[in-house]
Amino acid sequence: MRWTIAARPIARELVPEDFEKDANPAASPALREGELRVAVLMLSCDPAQKGWMENVAGYAEPTEIGQTMPALGVGRVLESAAPGFAPGDLVQGLLGWATEMVVAAEAMRKVRDEPDAPRLALGLLGSSGLTAYFGLTRIGVPQAGDTLVVTGAAGGVGSIVGQIGKIAGCRVIGIAGGPDKCRWLTEELGFDHAIDYKAEKVKARVRELAPDGIDVLWDNVGGQMLEDLLARIARKARVVICGGIARYQQQGRPPGPASYFNIVFKSARMEGFLLGDFAEDHDIGRDRLRKWLAEGRIVQRDEVVDGLENAPQTLLRLFRGENRGKLLIKVAQ
Amino acid sequence: MRWTIAARPIARELVPEDFEKDANPAASPALREGELRVAVLMLSCDPAQKGWMENVAGYAEPTEIGQTMPALGVGRVLESAAPGFAPGDLVQGLLGWATEMVVAAEAMRKVRDEPDAPRLALGLLGSSGLTAYFGLTRIGVPQAGDTLVVTGAAGGVGSIVGQIGKIAGCRVIGIAGGPDKCRWLTEELGFDHAIDYKAEKVKARVRELAPDGIDVLWDNVGGQMLEDLLARIARKARVVICGGIARYQQQGRPPGPASYFNIVFKSARMEGFLLGDFAEDHDIGRDRLRKWLAEGRIVQRDEVVDGLENAPQTLLRLFRGENRGKLLIKVAQ
Repeated sequence: MRWTIAARPIARELVPEDFEKDANPAASPALREGELRVAVLMLSCDPAQKGWMENVAGYAEPTEIGQTMPALGVGRVLESAAPGFAPGDLVQGLLGWATEMVVAAEAMRKVRDEPDAPRLALGLLGSSGLTAYFGLTRIGVPQAGDTLVVTGAAGGVGSIVGQIGKIAGCRVIGIAGGPDKCRWLTEELGFDHAIDYKAEKVKARVRELAPDGIDVLWDNVGGQMLEDLLARIARKARVVICGGIARYQQQGRPPGPASYFNIVFKSARMEGFLLGDFAEDHDIGRDRLRKWLAEGRIVQRDEVVDGLENAPQTLLRLFRGENRGKLLIKVAQ
Repeated sequence: MRWTIAARPIARELVPEDFEKDANPAASPALREGELRVAVLMLSCDPAQKGWMENVAGYAEPTEIGQTMPALGVGRVLESAAPGFAPGDLVQGLLGWATEMVVAAEAMRKVRDEPDAPRLALGLLGSSGLTAYFGLTRIGVPQAGDTLVVTGAAGGVGSIVGQIGKIAGCRVIGIAGGPDKCRWLTEELGFDHAIDYKAEKVKARVRELAPDGIDVLWDNVGGQMLEDLLARIARKARVVICGGIARYQQQGRPPGPASYFNIVFKSARMEGFLLGDFAEDHDIGRDRLRKWLAEGRIVQRDEVVDGLENAPQTLLRLFRGENRGKLLIKVAQ
């Protein structure tokens, strides 16, 4: 079974009709040199997937209508025509919404076969955890005593950013939607404060909680939220632009942050990055995160939805902001 | 004689009526400890002056209606009640639109008494030259072979940024208004290309002239120009936000750059600074600029308007973009 891309969600929200179910895909041909046949075990839901469907320039390989919906995932090798890979190996990389796929081995990474390996590899030790780790440590450069504000704080990346911020000695303020998520941030993840943007006035609350301004701003959201927070940065602030959930869902292109000029008054820096920029150091990041997890200093929180059947609805939930932590789809054991 | 602030030009253009002439100001009182009486020789016109009049947060000391219009300038000490300063010394600092002023010595810097000292101190060796030097070398970090695009390229700062860019081995593209300014950039200042934004399509011309994208973007303008150029940055680009001429003149707050998210796709950095951030190194900057001037590698271009009488009209010309290079007002010999 697989799901294909049926339409491009450009300048609009994702809808279930953007995907088409293919209950009986053609049997994949014999492997060519360098290929692997993989049983898909687990897939992750990522904001970037909408960009892939839109063919946003600069983000990824172009997608085609009718192709299997791409998704990052973990699978088990069923058959190998590539040196260094054997049946039974766990691999991670760009897979898709299918029970079985044929992929180029060079695009796959072998995953350590540890307990809960697929979940770990896609969550804390995967793109979310590494994005949080490298974006915060290398771009945000938090200093002990800094005030770190994280938007989209209950998401897969934001929930880890805040926890690493605590380890780095920051005062951490998370912004999320709804009292449950906010309680989760402060009570389970150890954030110092959480602001419920659906019920509270973000600008006024940030002024109360961070009277000296924001030293590190981690933005997953964009739009009005980013504009309000840029107005509250401290001198020499670092603004890490990671995502733009507000942007993904809007009709047409939203305006940029009118308060951007505050980076001049505050001698501040606003910077973006792609996870691949730090590819050489990914193993260093994984080791740190694994250690913090083992020491109980980071809580790995994700939500695993069972069944490839539910993939479209699950990805839609991500864009409605209904998840806490990383949202994963379990395809097989 | 002096000019006072008569109104705050908030969210509108400057008009002549924002200033009031005071032909016979009260004689200033006897000096207090630490003060200097200074004959004003030359004043500079700077975009920041409008911000001072508006009391923009974070920029400067608050201004009051009725006070002497502040301006950076050079004067000669007439009388000193401060150690280390003697009559005849040249000093530089925040003065104002007046023939004579009493100022705190600690806010003044002594200027080397060299030929053309006031012009040099306010131009190439003053805030314009130092802003260009530190902003480009420390924030823009140009690498030989980089493509540098400068907006407001014919202005006091932009004209120096482009010349330092050439010394640093960059290909330099200046954007300015009108064929005369553009010719000036390429023929006299050595820019590789100039784009006349009043006659040419900036986005299309930049695509032609910089097909691999912009490595360093120096922005004096903001608004639509910044938005268009952010869409053309190269991987790992550095965007130096220096000014926002578009912003100063608009009715209401202009939108931010909708293309800001391109800094994520390009792993780019957008950063602001204040000249004071580099105060400890200002002498290093002045020495470099003086050396390049002596070697003929930088052309010092400014426009000196005679007479304090003409101060309001001259500052208005700055905001209409009519100047080439730094705009100065000569008050006395």
